[in-house]
Amino acid sequence: MSNSIAVIKIGGNVIDDNVKLTAFLQDFSKLKGPKILVHGGGKKSSQFSKEIGLTPTMHQGRRITDAATLDVVTMVYAGLINKNIVAQLQSLGCNALGMSGADGNAIQSVKRNHPEIDFGFVGDVEKVNTDFIQTQLSQGITPVFCAITHNKKGQLLNTNADTIASEVAASLSNAFEVVLHYCFEKKGVLQSVEDDDSVIPFIDTTSYKTLLDSGIIADGMLPKLKNCFDALNKGVQSVNIGLPAMINNASYPRTQIKL
Amino acid sequence: MSNSIAVIKIGGNVIDDNVKLTAFLQDFSKLKGPKILVHGGGKKSSQFSKEIGLTPTMHQGRRITDAATLDVVTMVYAGLINKNIVAQLQSLGCNALGMSGADGNAIQSVKRNHPEIDFGFVGDVEKVNTDFIQTQLSQGITPVFCAITHNKKGQLLNTNADTIASEVAASLSNAFEVVLHYCFEKKGVLQSVEDDDSVIPFIDTTSYKTLLDSGIIADGMLPKLKNCFDALNKGVQSVNIGLPAMINNASYPRTQIKL
Repeated sequence: MSNSIAVIKIGGNVIDDNVKLTAFLQDFSKLKGPKILVHGGGKKSSQFSKEIGLTPTMHQGRRITDAATLDVVTMVYAGLINKNIVAQLQSLGCNALGMSGADGNAIQSVKRNHPEIDFGFVGDVEKVNTDFIQTQLSQGITPVFCAITHNKKGQLLNTNADTIASEVAASLSNAFEVVLHYCFEKKGVLQSVEDDDSVIPFIDTTSYKTLLDSGIIADGMLPKLKNCFDALNKGVQSVNIGLPAMINNASYPRTQIKL
Repeated sequence: MSNSIAVIKIGGNVIDDNVKLTAFLQDFSKLKGPKILVHGGGKKSSQFSKEIGLTPTMHQGRRITDAATLDVVTMVYAGLINKNIVAQLQSLGCNALGMSGADGNAIQSVKRNHPEIDFGFVGDVEKVNTDFIQTQLSQGITPVFCAITHNKKGQLLNTNADTIASEVAASLSNAFEVVLHYCFEKKGVLQSVEDDDSVIPFIDTTSYKTLLDSGIIADGMLPKLKNCFDALNKGVQSVNIGLPAMINNASYPRTQIKL
């Protein structure tokens, strides 16, 4: 396979900071070849929820997406954040098309059915419409996905953006050599949380177990690394975790995840 | 030309009423052949603006889209309303793709430059990306446009949905026989506002002048009819005003606008 594609996920640390977001979008728009952006939500949905008097619904310490919260995240993720990113990318000459998973039936999910906790309107990705995404890419379109999907029965569902990135990357790995970048607020997975420069350059299946056992990978890094290994196991060729600056600077620090 | 397309605009009377919206979307999804939906905003953006404590900005009696209001309409139109419509259409077997004018650079507009009133972030349509829309249609996609466009310089702009429908319809009139339906809360343009059944079946350029002079066409009908005649003058083959039920029932009352 000679054709490669970059799938890049950004989160709140970029989305909530206009200067960082603009710098990232400039870097992203300069990437050659086909590319896909997946964005999380950031703090704006919590801010709006508070402003309209919504109290976060928690159950056993986990946040629940009730109907009112689903409306807010749909507004903020698919509306405010997605369309502002698309407009900025268009101004930079990148032909972006913003989408939820409902659009073009791009990402179908199933409402989470947890034995103990009712998470509300939360969806787990069931299938990605690879043909639709490939057709858009073949026309020079850059898909920009927000973290909202649907169940094909008329219900929108709040969905983890890291998982969307992993599943979209995996769905394209038959047709492309896929590089998946998880951008976050650190230079990579750290050996010591107190030392920003203690980046672990490579993690493979073996060292992953050691890092888990030693507690070095914990908390928020657990689901992120699960998404990385899921992508690799489903055929994604390369997965990196690090700062947004890594995406078009091959010598920039990062943690490379391997099988 | 043998291929025809329907461009249908719905407004607040449908959007704000879940029963009416579902009935409309069922009718819409049953329409054969290529079709495009354009939706306005309804009351939700005003409700949400109030909830977050925004005071409508007025200037000489006209509503101004300041930055905070633009954020709200982007959230409500491009997020909440657009994505719920798309999810419902997908559940009905219609392969909808929701878009603002920024997506795929579908609709580029210019910030309104009024000699007396600064309308804020309001855009007047400058050009429609016909190639992009036709490519989507050729793949069986049903574009669903909200009333947000962009200026290709990174700025989103609040844009009249009737005008978007008129301009999108006009842009396709070289390639298709275009039927443009403006759905609203009446069976058509009324001879007497007090008699819902006094529908004027046909309006052409000549009778339009008479109706204007007599004051029968006034207020909100003025810009709507301007958009109708703009569409016809730019090549749209057929324009109708009436209830949503007219779209797939040829014998249903309506006002047909002609040159």
